[in-house]
Amino acid sequence: MTYTAPTTEQLFVLQHIARIDAMAEHERFAAATPDMVEAIVTGIGDFAAEVYAPLNRVGDTNNPKWDDGKVIMPPGFKEAYRQFVEAGWGSIDGPGAYGGQDLPFTLATVVIEALGSANMGFSLCNILTPGAIHALMAYGTEQQRATWLPKLTTGEWNGTMNLTEPAAGSDVGALRSTAEKVTEGEHAGLYRIKGQKIFITFGEHDLTDNIVHLVLARTPGAPEGTRGISLFLVPKYRLDADGRPTISNGVRCASIEHKLGIHGSPTAVMIYGEEEECLGEIVGEEMGGMRAMFVMMNNARLMIGCQGIQIGERATQQAQRFAAERLQSALAGSPDRTPVTIDKHPDVRRMLWRMRAQTEAARALVYYAAAQVDFGKLGDEAAAMRAEILTPLAKAHATDIGCEVASLGIQVHGGMGFIEETGAAQHYRDARIAPIYEGTNGIQAADLVGRKLGMAGGDLIRGLIDDIAYGAGDDFPELSQLAEACRAVTDWMAKAPLPDRLAGSYPYLTMLATATCGWLMALQHRGAKAALEEGAGDTAFLEAKIASTRFYLQQIVPAAAGLAPAALAGNAALPEIA
Amino acid sequence: MTYTAPTTEQLFVLQHIARIDAMAEHERFAAATPDMVEAIVTGIGDFAAEVYAPLNRVGDTNNPKWDDGKVIMPPGFKEAYRQFVEAGWGSIDGPGAYGGQDLPFTLATVVIEALGSANMGFSLCNILTPGAIHALMAYGTEQQRATWLPKLTTGEWNGTMNLTEPAAGSDVGALRSTAEKVTEGEHAGLYRIKGQKIFITFGEHDLTDNIVHLVLARTPGAPEGTRGISLFLVPKYRLDADGRPTISNGVRCASIEHKLGIHGSPTAVMIYGEEEECLGEIVGEEMGGMRAMFVMMNNARLMIGCQGIQIGERATQQAQRFAAERLQSALAGSPDRTPVTIDKHPDVRRMLWRMRAQTEAARALVYYAAAQVDFGKLGDEAAAMRAEILTPLAKAHATDIGCEVASLGIQVHGGMGFIEETGAAQHYRDARIAPIYEGTNGIQAADLVGRKLGMAGGDLIRGLIDDIAYGAGDDFPELSQLAEACRAVTDWMAKAPLPDRLAGSYPYLTMLATATCGWLMALQHRGAKAALEEGAGDTAFLEAKIASTRFYLQQIVPAAAGLAPAALAGNAALPEIA
Repeated sequence: MTYTAPTTEQLFVLQHIARIDAMAEHERFAAATPDMVEAIVTGIGDFAAEVYAPLNRVGDTNNPKWDDGKVIMPPGFKEAYRQFVEAGWGSIDGPGAYGGQDLPFTLATVVIEALGSANMGFSLCNILTPGAIHALMAYGTEQQRATWLPKLTTGEWNGTMNLTEPAAGSDVGALRSTAEKVTEGEHAGLYRIKGQKIFITFGEHDLTDNIVHLVLARTPGAPEGTRGISLFLVPKYRLDADGRPTISNGVRCASIEHKLGIHGSPTAVMIYGEEEECLGEIVGEEMGGMRAMFVMMNNARLMIGCQGIQIGERATQQAQRFAAERLQSALAGSPDRTPVTIDKHPDVRRMLWRMRAQTEAARALVYYAAAQVDFGKLGDEAAAMRAEILTPLAKAHATDIGCEVASLGIQVHGGMGFIEETGAAQHYRDARIAPIYEGTNGIQAADLVGRKLGMAGGDLIRGLIDDIAYGAGDDFPELSQLAEACRAVTDWMAKAPLPDRLAGSYPYLTMLATATCGWLMALQHRGAKAALEEGAGDTAFLEAKIASTRFYLQQIVPAAAGLAPAALAGNAALPEIA
Repeated sequence: MTYTAPTTEQLFVLQHIARIDAMAEHERFAAATPDMVEAIVTGIGDFAAEVYAPLNRVGDTNNPKWDDGKVIMPPGFKEAYRQFVEAGWGSIDGPGAYGGQDLPFTLATVVIEALGSANMGFSLCNILTPGAIHALMAYGTEQQRATWLPKLTTGEWNGTMNLTEPAAGSDVGALRSTAEKVTEGEHAGLYRIKGQKIFITFGEHDLTDNIVHLVLARTPGAPEGTRGISLFLVPKYRLDADGRPTISNGVRCASIEHKLGIHGSPTAVMIYGEEEECLGEIVGEEMGGMRAMFVMMNNARLMIGCQGIQIGERATQQAQRFAAERLQSALAGSPDRTPVTIDKHPDVRRMLWRMRAQTEAARALVYYAAAQVDFGKLGDEAAAMRAEILTPLAKAHATDIGCEVASLGIQVHGGMGFIEETGAAQHYRDARIAPIYEGTNGIQAADLVGRKLGMAGGDLIRGLIDDIAYGAGDDFPELSQLAEACRAVTDWMAKAPLPDRLAGSYPYLTMLATATCGWLMALQHRGAKAALEEGAGDTAFLEAKIASTRFYLQQIVPAAAGLAPAALAGNAALPEIA
C-alpha cells in the first residue's frame, strides 16, 4: 500500500515530451533550471510518499464527518495539509507578485501527480485552488488579487468551484442561483447571493480558516442560458478590518455525499444566503461568468486528466509488487514444477505491461498538454491552440485509462483484489469519478467535434495528425495506419452534420487520443534508444521504456483503428430507445 | 432501483439461439413445451422482481454479520429464500429421481439470470448448489444420492465448493487440506478432514438447517499437485438416525470477508476439524478429485458467465430509466432551446445502445453455450464438444461485458452515478468479482489456448469459425473479416509454443468470443427481420433487436479485429518486468 514516486520516468517525460529545457530558455521560466526541476520532482515525490500516502486508506475508511454544517476531516489530514502549505507545494506555478514561484504549469502538474498518486481524494483540495487563482489573475481587480491571492497561493485558504445545481449539471446554463447587487450602505457594489449548489468538492472542511468559493449565479433580468451567468467570489467568512476571516457570510454546508470512492474528499451540498445574508464580489463583468469559468475549468480539466496518471501509477506499482511476491503455479510448458511468482506467467505479464504502457501514455499526453499551455504563455500561439485540442483528449482519455488500469490492478490480485483490505479496490472506486466530473468524457468528446474540430477551419486537428504521421515515420506502421484512419474520420467529421459528429464523437476521441499517445510513445522509444546507445541514463529504466513503448505501439495502437466504423456510423445508427 | 425481467428477449433467444423447441422434440426434455417454457420464464421473472430485487440494496448496505462462527443474513433474506424453495425454483434441471424437474439446463440458466439480475449477491447461493448436485450425480454412490440429493434439489440444504486455500488459488494442486480414512469404529470408511479454506461463497449462513460442503483435500501419501487430490462431502451437521442434521461436525466459519461488492453473499474462511472431529464422505475415488471438481465447476463457469448478463441487464434497465427521465440541455444543432431528456443526446444514446447490444450478446453467448450442454446430454457429441470451447468464452467474455456495461451505467448517470444511493455504483462493484472467481478470466484464456485449442487437432475451434464465417454471409462483411482474423490467429496459435500462445491468449479469447457473439447477433438480426415481415411478435421489440444487433455488428465487431496484433505478439513482447 506504499507509493514511490516514479521520478526517473517523470524527469524523462519532462525532458523528451514536455521539453522543459526549452521552457527554461525563456526569461519567464528561467528559474526552471535542471537542478530546480529535479529538486521539485524528487522533493514532491518524497513529500507525497511520506505525508499523503499513509493517509490514503485512512481517508477511504474514515469518511469526513458532517456535523451541523461543519465537516471534520479524517485524522491526520489537517496536519498533512499544514505541512503541504509550509513546504510551499501549493505555490509552484502561482503568481510571483502574490507569493508564487512563477514556475511552469507543467511542474505543478508533476506536483499534483505525486500528491494524487499518494492520495487521490485528499489531493482534490490542491487541484481546485489553482482554478480560483487563474480566474482572479485573469478577471479579478487589483484589489481582489491583493486581498485573496496571497493566501490562495500558499494554500492557507482553498478555492472551490460552484457550478452544478440539481437541475443544472452538464447544462450549466440552466442554473438558478441568483446574485443581486447591493446599491447602498457599507456593502454597496457587492452582491447578495442566493441558491443551492451540489457536488462541491471540498466545499466545507476544517483544513483552513477560510474557504474561497467561486460561484456562478444569475443577476436580475439576465438572459436565459449561459449568456446570463456571472461569476462571484463568495468567502466562507468575510474579512474584518485586519484582513482576518472572522465574519460569518451565510454560507452553509447542508450535507456531504456518500460516494463510491474518493472518500477522503468531502463532496458538499452548499446553501448560500438562506437564513443569513451572503455577500459575494463579482469577478469580471456581469454576464461574463462563462468566460471566467472556462479559464478556471480548462486547467482543471488537465488536472483531472492527471488523475488518470495518478491512479494508473499507484495501481500499477501495487500490482507489480503483489505479482513479484505471490507464488502460484509452475511456469506452463516448463519441466520444472516449482511454483513461480505470478509476474512470470505470460498473461499476468501482459496485464502488467498494459498497465504500465497505458499509464505512461496518459502521463505523456497530460504533460505534453500542460507544456503546450506553458509554451502558449511564452507567446507560442500554435502551442496555445494545440492545448485547446489536447485538453479534451487528455481529460477524457487519461481518465478512461485510469479506470482500465485500476481494473487490471484488481485482476492481477485475483481474489485478493476483491477484498477491501488489499487496497486495489480503492483505486478502482476512486478512479471512477474522473471520467465524470469537470465535464463528463462525453462532454469532452462533444467539445472535440463541436468547438475544437472547427477551429482554424479544421487545421488544428489536421496539424496534430500531420505531426503524428510524421512521427510514425517508417518505424511504426501501426501508428501510420491509425493516423490515416484519424485523418479519414476527421475529413468525414468536417462535413458531417452535428448530430452525426456527436454520434461518433467518443470513438473518434479515443482514436485521436490513442494516436497522439502513440506518437508521444514513439518519441520516447527513440529517445530511450538514443540514450542507451550514448550510455546516458539508467539502463534498466531505458530498457523498460523501450519495452513499454513498443507494447503500446504494437498492441494498443492497432486496436484503436478498429473504432473507425463506430466513429463513422452516424446518428441514424442510434435510433430512439424503445 | 426496480427490475423487470426481459421475458420477450429471453424467449426470443431461447427460440432463435438455444433452439429450445428442438430440445423439446427429445423425450428427455419433452416437458419443455412452449407453454412450460413461457410459464417458467415469466414466473421466475415475476418472482425475481417481487421477492429478490427489493433485497438488493438491503444486502449491499446490511452486510451479513459474523458472530462467533455463525453468520446472520440481512433482514428479509431468510424469508425470500424460503419462498424460493417453496416455489420449486431450485429444482428446474434437478434430477427427476430426487425431486427435480429434469428440464433443460438452459432453462435453469434463465432462472439464474433473473434471480441474479434482481440480486446478484443473494443469487450466488442458488448457483453453487447445482454444482454439488452434478458432482453427486456423476460420482456419488446410490446411498449418497439418496441421502443428500433430495434436499439439495429443493434447495432446503445448499451446497458449497471448497477449493481455495491461502497458498492455493488458481493453482488448486497446491492445496494442503488433508483427509485421513477412518479404518474402524462406527465411522469406518469416512474420512477425517483437516484444513483451512478461503473465499467460500455461502460457506456459512442462517438460510438453511444444513450446508453441504464439497471439499478438495489430500489423502496421506497422495502425490503432489492435482493428481493427489480427492473430493469429499462434508456436511455442516451430520445426520442422525432420522436423517435430521443434528450432529455437529467440526466445521467452523472463522470469519467473513469485507469485499468490494456482492455484499449480500457471505464469503467465508472455513476451518475443518480444528478442535472437533470433522468427518467427510469421499465422492468418487481417491485421487479422483480433479475430475469431479471439473464436473462441479464447468457448469459453475457458465453460471458465472451468466452474471455478466445479470448485471448488464440490471444496469441497462436502470440507465435507460434514468436517461428517459433526466432533463438536461437542448438538443445540439436544434433551434429549439428546450432541455430534452438525456436519452435524446447522441453520445448518451450510443452508451445506451452499447449497453444493450453487449448485454444481448452476452445473453446469446451464455444461452447458446448452455444449450450445447443440453444437446450434449441428448447425445449430440458435436454439441458437447462445442460446449467445451464455449465455456471459457462465455465465462470470460460475458463477465468482461458485465463490468463494461456497469461502468457505462455509472457514466450515463453522470455525477449521480457516483453517489451510492443511486444504485448504479453497486452494479459496478458487484460486477467486478465475476472476472475473478471460478477461474480468473486469464485462466479461461489459458484453458482456451492450452486445452481447448488442441482438442480434435484444432478442428473444434476451426469448426466454430467456419460456422461464424458462414453465418456472416455477404450481409455482414465486418463479421467475415473478424472470422478470418480469428482463423489466422488460430493457425498461428496451433503452431506456436505454449508461452507464445499464452502471451496472446486474452486478446485471442476476446476476438473469438466477439466473433461468436457477432454470429449469434447476426442470426437474431435475420430472425427479427423475418418475424417483422411475417407480422409475428412484438414490433417494438423486433425493431429494437434489429437496431441492437446492427450496432453490435457494425460498431463492436470491427474493434475486435484490431486485437489480432496483440494476439500474435508472442511472449518475447512481454519481457521480465524490471
